[in-house]
Amino acid sequence: MSATDSHPAIPEAAYRLLEAPHFATIATTQPDGTPQQTVVWLKRDGNDVLFSTIRGRRKTLNMEREPRISVMVYDSENPYAYVEIRGTVSMTEEGGDDLIHELSHYYTGARFPGDDGTDHVRVVCRVTPTKVITRAL
Amino acid sequence: MSATDSHPAIPEAAYRLLEAPHFATIATTQPDGTPQQTVVWLKRDGNDVLFSTIRGRRKTLNMEREPRISVMVYDSENPYAYVEIRGTVSMTEEGGDDLIHELSHYYTGARFPGDDGTDHVRVVCRVTPTKVITRAL
Repeated sequence: MSATDSHPAIPEAAYRLLEAPHFATIATTQPDGTPQQTVVWLKRDGNDVLFSTIRGRRKTLNMEREPRISVMVYDSENPYAYVEIRGTVSMTEEGGDDLIHELSHYYTGARFPGDDGTDHVRVVCRVTPTKVITRAL
Repeated sequence: MSATDSHPAIPEAAYRLLEAPHFATIATTQPDGTPQQTVVWLKRDGNDVLFSTIRGRRKTLNMEREPRISVMVYDSENPYAYVEIRGTVSMTEEGGDDLIHELSHYYTGARFPGDDGTDHVRVVCRVTPTKVITRAL
């Protein structure tokens, strides 16, 4: 898919931030309209970014109600360099377990044990950018 | 001021994150109701946290319209440890120049040159917590 005004391209200079070892903060919108932030593992897939969540979590409920979110990554070694991706998130359970283990391998070097013995339903979150802001990249 | 249900105390375990060298992401709310994130320097003042902005900036306009914001700080050396402070921001120009230079000294070791020769009007942003969430501290 080529970039358009409504679906801007992520600059290649930002690619290195959109993967391990960099963590991302996700901002979603609470039922009262205020922002909520969490920290997630991230992976780029073409011009989208992917992260993982679990059904029923606060941020999952927020994204089900309001799919327009913000993804922020700064360089931990130089926090003046950052990329903010605002976009629309789509969610699917398909591939949910594969993604969390893949991300875990990237970020920790091992599969993800946190869901073992739980009834967690893993969800793939795919963010398609509507606006991309970079600084000092 | 003592902590209450509506003004929870920031746990002392989070204090080390609320100062240099840790950077914070601030989530504000855009006119269309969606979240916007930026990266800022932070300082704790008792049970409040302070950061600096400039009149007319997007996040400043957002906070003038919707003062309920989120402040997220994770440990760059261990991003699984984080604190999110949701709260209400108040803004004043009083002490605005002092704060940006103080923060700059903490984070860079020198005064802040970025406003020199500009008409920037510096604003002190004071966030009073309404909810504090910590993880792995």
